[in-house]
Amino acid sequence: MIGGGQLARMTCQAAIALGVDFRILADSPDDSAARVWGAVTLGDYRSLSDVSAFADDCDVLTFDHEHVPASVLDALVSAGVELRPGPAALRYTQDKLAMRDRLSALGMPCPRYAEVKDLADVEAFTRGSWPVVLKAVTGGYDGKGVWICSSAAEVLDVLGHGIELMAEEFVPFERELAVLAARSPHKQGAVYPVVQTVQQDGICREVIAPAPGLPGDRGAQAQELALRIAAELDVTRLLAVELFETADGLLINELAMRPHNCGHWTIDGARTSQFEQHLRAVLDLPLGSTDLSAPVTVMANVLGGDGGGTYDRYIHVMAADAGVKVHMYGKEPRPGRKIGHVTVTGGDVARVRERARRAASFLRWGTEDGE
Amino acid sequence: MIGGGQLARMTCQAAIALGVDFRILADSPDDSAARVWGAVTLGDYRSLSDVSAFADDCDVLTFDHEHVPASVLDALVSAGVELRPGPAALRYTQDKLAMRDRLSALGMPCPRYAEVKDLADVEAFTRGSWPVVLKAVTGGYDGKGVWICSSAAEVLDVLGHGIELMAEEFVPFERELAVLAARSPHKQGAVYPVVQTVQQDGICREVIAPAPGLPGDRGAQAQELALRIAAELDVTRLLAVELFETADGLLINELAMRPHNCGHWTIDGARTSQFEQHLRAVLDLPLGSTDLSAPVTVMANVLGGDGGGTYDRYIHVMAADAGVKVHMYGKEPRPGRKIGHVTVTGGDVARVRERARRAASFLRWGTEDGE
Repeated sequence: MIGGGQLARMTCQAAIALGVDFRILADSPDDSAARVWGAVTLGDYRSLSDVSAFADDCDVLTFDHEHVPASVLDALVSAGVELRPGPAALRYTQDKLAMRDRLSALGMPCPRYAEVKDLADVEAFTRGSWPVVLKAVTGGYDGKGVWICSSAAEVLDVLGHGIELMAEEFVPFERELAVLAARSPHKQGAVYPVVQTVQQDGICREVIAPAPGLPGDRGAQAQELALRIAAELDVTRLLAVELFETADGLLINELAMRPHNCGHWTIDGARTSQFEQHLRAVLDLPLGSTDLSAPVTVMANVLGGDGGGTYDRYIHVMAADAGVKVHMYGKEPRPGRKIGHVTVTGGDVARVRERARRAASFLRWGTEDGE
Repeated sequence: MIGGGQLARMTCQAAIALGVDFRILADSPDDSAARVWGAVTLGDYRSLSDVSAFADDCDVLTFDHEHVPASVLDALVSAGVELRPGPAALRYTQDKLAMRDRLSALGMPCPRYAEVKDLADVEAFTRGSWPVVLKAVTGGYDGKGVWICSSAAEVLDVLGHGIELMAEEFVPFERELAVLAARSPHKQGAVYPVVQTVQQDGICREVIAPAPGLPGDRGAQAQELALRIAAELDVTRLLAVELFETADGLLINELAMRPHNCGHWTIDGARTSQFEQHLRAVLDLPLGSTDLSAPVTVMANVLGGDGGGTYDRYIHVMAADAGVKVHMYGKEPRPGRKIGHVTVTGGDVARVRERARRAASFLRWGTEDGE
């Protein structure tokens, strides 16, 4: 796996169980996964020589992020390295305009969008209807690279960054959903129940599995969308599809082709965690059961807070609620940074959400009443 | 943790989630846990200097086996090292006669037993009623160090080993049960549901959680026994109590003070795995929920079989049953050696047992119909 972040770290847990020879190319010994794992190589994912040397010891290469340059990916494929997924699929996670073009060509429900180069393009796109969403075509994540603009002045500010941009209609969604599918080189597909995600300032804060009150046909539609995209884009591992649920139905927001924050709940709430599923798909093993192991599972992200020690807060969190599962990433707790998550399972959505919220708040702020 | 076997390896999974700085003293880089973990020190657990040097970097020391010599344990305590559990408690897992004496003094239900030095002692103990069970007072595990003798000639064979022995009555049990408790230095206790264990040739082959058809009062009695023993012996981590269920009630067979084969099912079948519980107890954190996450969980050990490649068999096992959870230990598959386990969850005991048996058999023999 190229990248030693928390996704690689949680993949280590699955690799231990499967007994597979899992190796990581990390930037630094302080990376989340490099802090725990034995088979770690240090190197730069942007360097073809570093990645090639790492690939020499691997049967198949996968990623915990989308930032490996396309030129490196193409050179690896030319050299015969087995990438899962391949560059053709990965392109749709690196280039949002290409993703929109491809999904639209497939007849998938997407927000209205256009490439924009200047204010005139944006004004032509908005047709006087504000706000408008501007997105960096490449390189954005966790709300970075997304701007909601309510005026020409705000658009000019964003244009001033000098990066490639696209415009999308502002979608007045009722809530956000996500669906996680897996697909193997053998073309087997598997899909998890649809979840609700709650974002704040562009960062995922909470995931509720399954999405409460979702009509069965809408859930089935979302699962079919994900499986069809995985097949059409030839995804050979996980595919996370982030969706807007609107009064008129579902619209596709973003895609990711890796274990995803919207699937962390599966470690404690599904028979097969997304990390095991990811390894199975990449290794072309039969996929695991996506059945729930609890009626309701809620995951809340733990963000860096006031600089207090997270570990010191375990005593309160664990004593207050013996059912909270804590997952920390071994990262320095910079304010607002995702440093871990908690999961709670149970039967009543409101109660389970409250328990998860309290635990995540206490780990962040030292009080259950933080936001 | 002193020892790098599969118990240490599965503890790594829990240490990743808790984000604690977990270190292992292993005999060899090929040890089960040393094959995956980063913070591994190589050394000899029988060497005070090796163990002391390792302990210098640790806040608290625990074990994945019971073989650290008492002299080493005592020297560590004298040097101020925090051992959990301490030597006084560990003694009862290293010396079966001391364990029986202590449990009997506490009024716990044990088989009739006696120290024996020669044939006359054994014959005095049997009073003509055969068979009799002879046990090595120290050093036995997995059926090694236990002999069921039906004649004086067989007793003489065992006496010929020249080791310290004790005799126990042969218990005509209906089945074997086990109960796993945890106790922290803060004296908090937690206990898992009672399970049924199925042994073959002295090796645990299958664990059924919870024990089918166990009357509630007998289950409660077993749980109380385990919690009371943990408190009386001042256990500060996990305590596994193996029990005989007889027509007349429960008798205590063996004790262990570490994560135990009878608790592997908790990874997939309980809200808190025994490995996380073990870390919580050793670190004096509040203990986790022992609630079941499925109505029935069955664990079957995978033993080394015909020398065929276990990984090559994943495709069949995973394709045949998407719900099977595979846990391999990265050990050379010598015939009869525990090299992994599988877990299956569900609602119907007979069906879940059959699924687990088929998967374990296929991983061992390449056929679902092996024993």
